[in-house]
Amino acid sequence: MKKYLIPDEWCIIEEGFNPDMHRSSESIFSLGNGKMGQRANFEEQYSGKTLQGNYVAGIYYPDKTRVGWWKNGYPEYFAKVLNSPNWIGLDVLADGEMLDLATATTTHFKRVLNMKEGTLSRSFDATLPSGKQLRVNAIRFLSMADTENGVIRYSVTPLNFSGKITFVPYLDGDVENEDSNYDEKFWNILWSNAKAGEATLLSQTKKLDFRVGYAMRYALQIDSANVTAKADMIQTATKAGNSVTIPVNKAQVATIVKYVAVSSSLNHAPDHLVDAATQSAQAAMHKGFDTMLAEHKAKWADKWTHSDIRIKGDVEAQQGIRFNIFQLNQTYTGEDARLNVGPKGFTGEKYGGTTYWDTEAYCIPFFISTAPAEVTRNLLVYRYKHLQKAIENAQKLGFTNGAALYPMVTINGEECHNEWEITFEEIHRNGAIAFAIHNYLRHTGDNGYLAEYGAEVLMGIARFWSQRITWSHERNKYVMLGVTGPNEYENNINNNWYTNKMAVWCLKYAQEALSIVKKDAPARYADIVAKTSFDEKETERWNHIIANMHFPFNEQLNVFMQQDGYMDKEQILAADLDPAQRPINQHWSWDRILRSCFIKQADTLQGIYVFEEEFDTETIRRNFNFYEPRTVHESSLSPCVHAILAAKIGNIDKAYEMYLRTSRLDLDDYNHEAHEGLHITSMAGTWMSVVEGFGGKRVYNQQLHLNPIIPQQWQEYAFRITFMGNDIEIRVSHTQVEIIAHGSGDVSLYLYGKPVTAKAGESTTITR
Amino acid sequence: MKKYLIPDEWCIIEEGFNPDMHRSSESIFSLGNGKMGQRANFEEQYSGKTLQGNYVAGIYYPDKTRVGWWKNGYPEYFAKVLNSPNWIGLDVLADGEMLDLATATTTHFKRVLNMKEGTLSRSFDATLPSGKQLRVNAIRFLSMADTENGVIRYSVTPLNFSGKITFVPYLDGDVENEDSNYDEKFWNILWSNAKAGEATLLSQTKKLDFRVGYAMRYALQIDSANVTAKADMIQTATKAGNSVTIPVNKAQVATIVKYVAVSSSLNHAPDHLVDAATQSAQAAMHKGFDTMLAEHKAKWADKWTHSDIRIKGDVEAQQGIRFNIFQLNQTYTGEDARLNVGPKGFTGEKYGGTTYWDTEAYCIPFFISTAPAEVTRNLLVYRYKHLQKAIENAQKLGFTNGAALYPMVTINGEECHNEWEITFEEIHRNGAIAFAIHNYLRHTGDNGYLAEYGAEVLMGIARFWSQRITWSHERNKYVMLGVTGPNEYENNINNNWYTNKMAVWCLKYAQEALSIVKKDAPARYADIVAKTSFDEKETERWNHIIANMHFPFNEQLNVFMQQDGYMDKEQILAADLDPAQRPINQHWSWDRILRSCFIKQADTLQGIYVFEEEFDTETIRRNFNFYEPRTVHESSLSPCVHAILAAKIGNIDKAYEMYLRTSRLDLDDYNHEAHEGLHITSMAGTWMSVVEGFGGKRVYNQQLHLNPIIPQQWQEYAFRITFMGNDIEIRVSHTQVEIIAHGSGDVSLYLYGKPVTAKAGESTTITR
Repeated sequence: MKKYLIPDEWCIIEEGFNPDMHRSSESIFSLGNGKMGQRANFEEQYSGKTLQGNYVAGIYYPDKTRVGWWKNGYPEYFAKVLNSPNWIGLDVLADGEMLDLATATTTHFKRVLNMKEGTLSRSFDATLPSGKQLRVNAIRFLSMADTENGVIRYSVTPLNFSGKITFVPYLDGDVENEDSNYDEKFWNILWSNAKAGEATLLSQTKKLDFRVGYAMRYALQIDSANVTAKADMIQTATKAGNSVTIPVNKAQVATIVKYVAVSSSLNHAPDHLVDAATQSAQAAMHKGFDTMLAEHKAKWADKWTHSDIRIKGDVEAQQGIRFNIFQLNQTYTGEDARLNVGPKGFTGEKYGGTTYWDTEAYCIPFFISTAPAEVTRNLLVYRYKHLQKAIENAQKLGFTNGAALYPMVTINGEECHNEWEITFEEIHRNGAIAFAIHNYLRHTGDNGYLAEYGAEVLMGIARFWSQRITWSHERNKYVMLGVTGPNEYENNINNNWYTNKMAVWCLKYAQEALSIVKKDAPARYADIVAKTSFDEKETERWNHIIANMHFPFNEQLNVFMQQDGYMDKEQILAADLDPAQRPINQHWSWDRILRSCFIKQADTLQGIYVFEEEFDTETIRRNFNFYEPRTVHESSLSPCVHAILAAKIGNIDKAYEMYLRTSRLDLDDYNHEAHEGLHITSMAGTWMSVVEGFGGKRVYNQQLHLNPIIPQQWQEYAFRITFMGNDIEIRVSHTQVEIIAHGSGDVSLYLYGKPVTAKAGESTTITR
Repeated sequence: MKKYLIPDEWCIIEEGFNPDMHRSSESIFSLGNGKMGQRANFEEQYSGKTLQGNYVAGIYYPDKTRVGWWKNGYPEYFAKVLNSPNWIGLDVLADGEMLDLATATTTHFKRVLNMKEGTLSRSFDATLPSGKQLRVNAIRFLSMADTENGVIRYSVTPLNFSGKITFVPYLDGDVENEDSNYDEKFWNILWSNAKAGEATLLSQTKKLDFRVGYAMRYALQIDSANVTAKADMIQTATKAGNSVTIPVNKAQVATIVKYVAVSSSLNHAPDHLVDAATQSAQAAMHKGFDTMLAEHKAKWADKWTHSDIRIKGDVEAQQGIRFNIFQLNQTYTGEDARLNVGPKGFTGEKYGGTTYWDTEAYCIPFFISTAPAEVTRNLLVYRYKHLQKAIENAQKLGFTNGAALYPMVTINGEECHNEWEITFEEIHRNGAIAFAIHNYLRHTGDNGYLAEYGAEVLMGIARFWSQRITWSHERNKYVMLGVTGPNEYENNINNNWYTNKMAVWCLKYAQEALSIVKKDAPARYADIVAKTSFDEKETERWNHIIANMHFPFNEQLNVFMQQDGYMDKEQILAADLDPAQRPINQHWSWDRILRSCFIKQADTLQGIYVFEEEFDTETIRRNFNFYEPRTVHESSLSPCVHAILAAKIGNIDKAYEMYLRTSRLDLDDYNHEAHEGLHITSMAGTWMSVVEGFGGKRVYNQQLHLNPIIPQQWQEYAFRITFMGNDIEIRVSHTQVEIIAHGSGDVSLYLYGKPVTAKAGESTTITR
């Protein structure tokens, strides 16, 4: 871990170019707008280490599965996130000499990600090998208002010479993926064309024929005056651009503004993509850089209004939490139910797929409180659209009668993962998907969702659990054999408490949901019954399971047992581990990890987090105090749940310690993996640590509860949440809690367990 | 399964060419001589489906591991069995027209594997596309006497024309492996040279620089008269040969005898290989075909004397058992402690490696009774030579202090396997390796082996178990967590009864072995103690484990439990399965298999087989009757153990049913996989089924026991075993048992539990 970024409340700042950190910086300074995104690759040529990454949401490639040993039931392919044609490309030459920060000497380098406004800018002075000195100022953004447009303004000033500056703006389809099972390229380029002042490109993914059209226009300036220049065409089978050379005097500023449009076949007719992109790029240039930027900033301002967390007295914490919120908001905007929140968002290729249980378990708690209800609803509809695939997935494993097993990793609903102990066994994901429906309903009251979509999903999931759970004559109880819990440091275990808990809850909730639909929308209920061949007698088994499920419990310790036989393991605490051996997943053999008692991430405690209202604080404390010391937190999803529970049981020091582990995970690159992309989905966990941890936000029975505490290290913090259509701001200091109901109605909630009504438009202050 | 082979007591016969079965036939008709071997590829060109396979014992390629998801501790590579340069190649042309059985019309095709003599012959009439008719008679063998030589005699008779017959004998290094993780070729060819009458080739494996030199000579005949012909040279970078054309009249026989030598760098200086091969090929030609064959047959006759099993009244059973014995004897001759018995022997590439626990658990029981003691001793020494690698393998997983974990699959002692649930967890193999030492000693009395080699191996193994077993405070017992037993249809289970049993036995036997060495060879004992830093106090923990190990047991059923929690599974019997769903490993998802109660191969029963003398017959029967009905026998290693135990408990019908499943597994290709090679190691199980099953052969306390029974289907059977240097033949009919002591001393044994002495050189007959 090398701390090289400068603390700032609203910006991520790198001063002085760090080539060794550049791949990490490319991740950290990434931009996105929900529809597309990109790593912070340089516009100009760069021959140093880089991971090129331009991503178009929803476009993927089914890469043929690679395994050591095939198991029946493995999927044929793994859907890969695709590095797509490069549209930021802009070679810069001074009197014919190429600017390349790997060969130039750089001073006054500054890179800034302005999170408030959603822009990435760079400035530096470069001395070329010839001795010529250039000053560069560049800024770009992917418009949140015009979501098919990206704009780059790039200025070059000769500092010690007068001469010719050449700009070569281009679109380049000859790109590759680092993550390719068989070192294949994934794109065909169907069209490339350069004309004076513009270029177009049409790309096509292999196998699935996704298509993306690109168009660029550009404008030139010297100082602030528009100029024109003769364009030489750059055109190959995979690349199109212009080369323009303008004479500039020493200290004059040569500027190019590049307007790009990226139009995909998800949103346009495939044969209209080049035209659509051309029109869009023209419209962007017509609108102009300043207007484009202003509209983009306005969109970001609105997002910040509803999702910002302010922390006074700790600029690193402030920067950390805003970075996480910023990345979440630019990864997923909730406008398109075909998209989801990838583990790396638009910042890298790793892990492929876009959808893990992270979405339901971590991202939905964030979006449900910070964005319009439609955003979460679209994440739920995404799973509804995949229901048939989930049923097919379960059939492949031997389940019948509409049982649905959602995949561990997916883009289009089909399972991509191919590790039996995860693919077939880490089935608690099915529970998270069901619980997200409940979570959405308790935050929005949108019961209509059940009739329209939710009930069918819940039925498929309940049917799966009903078949997956088996009767043990030996125990006279139902058991669930051969699963992997959230703790992936154990595989093929029996009776994982968390999974059993989730399964039984699903069997209950599916019945509740069906009865709501039956009552509220009887015609739709009849449709569902017909469509799914549902027989209410099925619930007899469901209820028999609910009444007779085995939950491992240790009488002596008075704690729930993570799984059968957990106490047979040698009981050592994480604190007793040699620090040089950590993280154990980098230092120990898999054999040793599996047999150890060490827990990767919240498992039993994940269940206690999800179903917290069922347990008294003493039970939570006992289980926390048993499991947390055995947990090595080697998943980015781990600390947040522990922060929340630690806060709940009053252990604020532990809560703060856990919070710190999530807050700046990528900014400070704790795990030495920022170069592969950011931990987008776990960023939601940081938000949860603050709002559910320190803020103590809960929703029980469609009632909002707050139990704010504040770490010593902070002076004050504030967050804003949406709940049942209300817009509520909460500010917490060491002496008081202030609640501001921004919406048009009064808000009733429980503060520290007592009912409080915050009047519409007013600030209500309660002394702590 | 297509039965196309003709029953015969001593031969495997195919009449009429079956191109669809040809890849299987290439496996079934394979030849080997311990030092090299080959599939029954045609000498002449063949453009149909074929798997070319020439193998040189001990030569391998470390192919870079391919996995879906890497786990710490996985090996970097998998040692692959290599298809080596083709030395049988012999193009045949009639007036320039190529003979190719894929394009010619064939009649009177007959292929014969003569197991008594160790030869492969073919005869057929072929009509070429031009209408020319040829009669071909070909025979070849890999000499058991001159083990670097192979000889082919190939005769062609023009049936309806007079013309020119061209023979193109060659050596070809441009070969590939079907089993290659990255589609690479594994050989470099360093030298190829053709002269009139001879050709040489020098090949080198990539990475490890194994080298193999090849030389060929040949002689020509018309009818039985030697002739000469002008040779045209065939020489490319990877191939060397001659082309010779001889005019023949209709009905004259043109014959070529090709003498080849294959010399590897395991046995010669690397820079002397071409010379060595050249000299060897010349010597072979000088000796001539008839003498070469006679010496080869004599070697086989000796092998058959000691290993044959004769069955009267069932020609298919006779053919089956001889086929298995033949394959075992041509795969491993026991002359070289660097070699072992590969799962496919010289018949295919599949499974790579050469050494699995099959060697100790199945092959040693065969060789110890049918071959000189040195043969088994060399198999044991092989593991001794790998001890340091086994210690390193254990270290990689986190074990210390000289603990040794032998690999699941290996050629050179390093682990090749890369599936965590097997590689790290199927550790019972370590027990089989220890038990083989005991098995060798109880058959030979060669206690000196312990001092020289055995004790060190046993100490490393005991140290491994001592560390691998952990104390459970919960149970107040020792437990062994996270293992895979012989039943590979369950992974990462706790307290596999078989593995626990094996481990505890090893801890006892290591102490017994060490005390024998201490007493018999105190100086050597001191050396071992010094070399291994052995502290006798280590045995305190060993003995504490022995006294306090947990063995799962079901009180109600009164049977040992395969693992903790086995009875939580839904209890269904294999007989209740839909036959269309079998084998389940081809019809069920891995998920379903894992969670089912079905057992792939003997697991608890494997332990009962190994330690049979500990259990009364009623206990064996109870456990057999519980486990066998839950066993799907989807490993070729499964039926034999069940046959032996079924015979033991008097269930002769079940014993015969199980015997039938092993006897003709490859000949009748039950599992549709003969085209990939034969199940060489499990062939030993068939021998065990007869000798230990029907013959009831046991060794308890260095005493030989026999309890022969005979299936109704047979009139009589006989086998011959070596025991404590004695050579004993046993003939069993429905009325009597005849024992013939072929050696120079009287033999004392127990027949049906009663002591019997068989006088040297006499036949002792006991009425049943």
